[in-house]
This record gives sequence, C-alpha cells and structure tokens, in this order.
Amino acid sequence: MDVAKALSVMLTNEGSSAQYQGWDLVKRPAVFKVGVPTLSGSGAEASRTAVLMGKDRKFGINSDHSMFDAIVLDSSLIAGVPADQRFHSGMDCYIHCVESLQGTMINELAKAYAERALILCESVFLNGGDDDALMTASFMGGCSIVNSEVGVCHALSYGLSMELHYRHGFANCVVFDVLDDYYGSAVCKFRDMMKRNGTALPKGVTRKLSSEAMERMVAMTLHMERPLTNALGENWREHMTRERIIELYRRM
Amino acid sequence: MDVAKALSVMLTNEGSSAQYQGWDLVKRPAVFKVGVPTLSGSGAEASRTAVLMGKDRKFGINSDHSMFDAIVLDSSLIAGVPADQRFHSGMDCYIHCVESLQGTMINELAKAYAERALILCESVFLNGGDDDALMTASFMGGCSIVNSEVGVCHALSYGLSMELHYRHGFANCVVFDVLDDYYGSAVCKFRDMMKRNGTALPKGVTRKLSSEAMERMVAMTLHMERPLTNALGENWREHMTRERIIELYRRM
Repeated sequence: MDVAKALSVMLTNEGSSAQYQGWDLVKRPAVFKVGVPTLSGSGAEASRTAVLMGKDRKFGINSDHSMFDAIVLDSSLIAGVPADQRFHSGMDCYIHCVESLQGTMINELAKAYAERALILCESVFLNGGDDDALMTASFMGGCSIVNSEVGVCHALSYGLSMELHYRHGFANCVVFDVLDDYYGSAVCKFRDMMKRNGTALPKGVTRKLSSEAMERMVAMTLHMERPLTNALGENWREHMTRERIIELYRRM
Repeated sequence: MDVAKALSVMLTNEGSSAQYQGWDLVKRPAVFKVGVPTLSGSGAEASRTAVLMGKDRKFGINSDHSMFDAIVLDSSLIAGVPADQRFHSGMDCYIHCVESLQGTMINELAKAYAERALILCESVFLNGGDDDALMTASFMGGCSIVNSEVGVCHALSYGLSMELHYRHGFANCVVFDVLDDYYGSAVCKFRDMMKRNGTALPKGVTRKLSSEAMERMVAMTLHMERPLTNALGENWREHMTRERIIELYRRM
C-alpha cells in the first residue's frame, strides 16, 4: 500500500521519491488510486503516510496527495494472514494509537478515532474479536494518524528496521517492549496481548550490531523530530540524547 | 446542508427532486461540494442523506452522489447556537446512533463510529464536554449512518415535522421520549440529559391535530420501510400497525 501511494505521487511529480520524504513536500496532485488492504494494522489504507526504505533512511512521504482516493475494506481478504504477522501488524495500530493519544499533536477527531481503534485492538487480541474488528481498528487508527503523530516507539523502530531488516509491525513490538518509562500501562497491556496470543519477542537483538550500525540508528532516531516533539515536547533533545537512545536500543 | 446536497444533485440530474427521494435513485454524479457545518448533530456533513420536505412527504435523497466531497469542521462555527437548538440537534446524533446500534442493518465500521459518537454525546450533555466533542460526535454519527439505518424514532418523527412544522432534532426528541418499549435504557439516559441541560418537552402535542392529519402521519410512517425493517425486522407490519402508530402519536 505504501508503494502504491508513493508511486501515485511519483507519476505526477518530478525527480526522486527521496526528495518527497518528509511532511507536505509533494507539489502536484497524484493519480487516482484505490486501496484494497490484505493486511490490517498499519492504517496505511487511511493515512497520508507512504513509508519508503531509502538507501540511507526509512522515512515517509506525508502528503494529502499520498492518500488513497477510495478504499475497499473486506475482512475476508485478511483471513489468510499468518498469526504472528496478524499480531505484529495489529500491534502497529495499537502502538500508534497509544503514541498519538499520549502526544500533544492531536485534535478531538483524531482522539475519537484512536480511542475507538484501541478498544477494537484490545477486543481482538484480548477477547477474540474477529477480522472485521481488526480491519476497522486499522482503518480508524490510520484516520487518527492523519490528524496526530506517532511517538517514541516509531522514532526508534525505523532504525531497527533499517539495520536488521525487520518488518515495521515486528520492529515496533521489539521497541515498545522496552518503553515502560514512556507508555507504562499500555506496555503492560501489550505484554498481556502477547501472552494471550501465544507469541514472544527475541531478546538481545542489537548485541551483534556494529558500532557504526548503532550510530546510524541513533542518527535516524534523532532525525524523527516530529514524533519526538509530539511525545516529549519541544525540548526533546535534552532528554533523548545519543546516550539515552543507545541505552534503549541495548535493552532490546 | 441538506439543501446544498440536494441542489448539487439537481444541477446534473433532470426532472424534479421528488423523483430522487428514496435510496440510490440518483443516476449522474453531482457537482463538487464542500460542507461547512454551523450546527452539529444531524451528521448531514458526513452522511448520504439530503432530507427534503416535499408537498406530501418529508423524505431523503439517499445516494453516494449526495455526499459532500470535502467538509470543514471548525467548532468555533457552532459556538453561537442557542442552548435548546444545540441540545435538540445533539440529540438527533444520540438518537440515530441508538437506532443504528440496536438495528440489524449495520456493519463493524458503522458500529465503531456510532459507539464513539454515543460516548461523545454523553460526555457533552452529561459531563460538560465542549463543542469540539459535539462536532466530532455529529461527524462520526453521520459516518455511521452511511453504513447503517435509523429506526422507530425517525420513522415517526418525519410525520410530526410535516404536520407540526417541527425542526428535525426537536421532533426526534418529542418522539424518542415515548419510545421506552423500543429503546428502554437509552430513553432513560435521554431524560437524564434533558434534566442536566435544563430543558423539557411539551406534552399533548398531537391533541389538536385533525384525524386527517393523523392519517397522513400514519401513512408517512408506514412509508418508512427501511428504518422499520432495521428496527423491527422484515415482519414489522405485524407490529407497527395503524393503531399502534396512532397510539404512539397520542402519547406525545
């Protein structure tokens, strides 16, 4: 879905996609596009974000022009998703809703979407809710992100995906599990959901990374100004230092 | 907003607007239109419905083509609405969410919208929630109605509006107050909200209506097949007889 969104922009805008990674950098309207999700959680079907993995960074094109013009939500299309992938993708929704609700860059509409998406995620992963509920959660989470912003987890997970080639949902899970200091009770609930769904996370995933890789991850995290401002305020650099970032990565 | 929606359809479709009152009768796409609500509750900013008062009936054009292409939600635009009108319009949202959630013609997405809209309505009218919350409730209620249907209250209120020239939100309140048999606890909560907001309803409003007027209201109610099927099932005619309808109107 992200590639489709990015492609629709690049068909009408000149140059390299890399120059549009960021916020509101796309100049011309994209081609008409319809999204048909076959995996639920990221909210890409509803959001402005088209996340791209570039040569030196993983970063999204965030523009009104990268949104789908129409989407088809049919939960029968996600029925065959393997259990672990379903869980990790679903947790992407859960996590970005937690991040947006606890951040400052949110309005009442986005709050309403995120609150409902959270309730749906919990119903799916704690009480056996069905794929209709999961698909609705993903859509509403995506709607929420249009008028809000992610936080500490996403700021750290992009680096992890880049160096370890982790899928986005899985990388978010690995990161969220060490964020008790920021999202306390929501992290506890996340662990309940892992347990209930019989899934677990690897430990020590950054142990074998070179110091160069670690520095690249630090640099990428420090590049995530908007999510970190949303989560920690304008003075986020005072708290989220190179040392603090390395400490968090080492815990994963 | 309803007139704007209807007008956009009539600029590109031939004949009288009366011939499009119903469901999916509009053939050609309408002109591009932007909705800017200055009153919140009906959900007209988000729904397919463009309710029209015709010579012989009040009935909506319900079509994909009657939806706004874009909307601007700015709660400062509803700041000047008089308290009673704010309440009655807000109750339109509350009531159609109750009707859609208790009906059968709903999907998971519409359910999520209606549940959140209900919570927001209650926060506004029981706990002093602000205009942002009210505007969000109205929008989400309207989104819900796109994939669900109203019920007994709306089926009865159109006739009342027609004969007594009541505004839609107010007519819904007058009707809902006698629907304990259908929406029990939601009616009790509605009365709590009236009390909390220092507002009350007139009694005996149908007393002075002629028997001809009453028969017209009965006919209009019996015309509301979709809402009544949604609320009472395919065999609704067995329950919602002329006598039963008159009995309900007499209670108002």
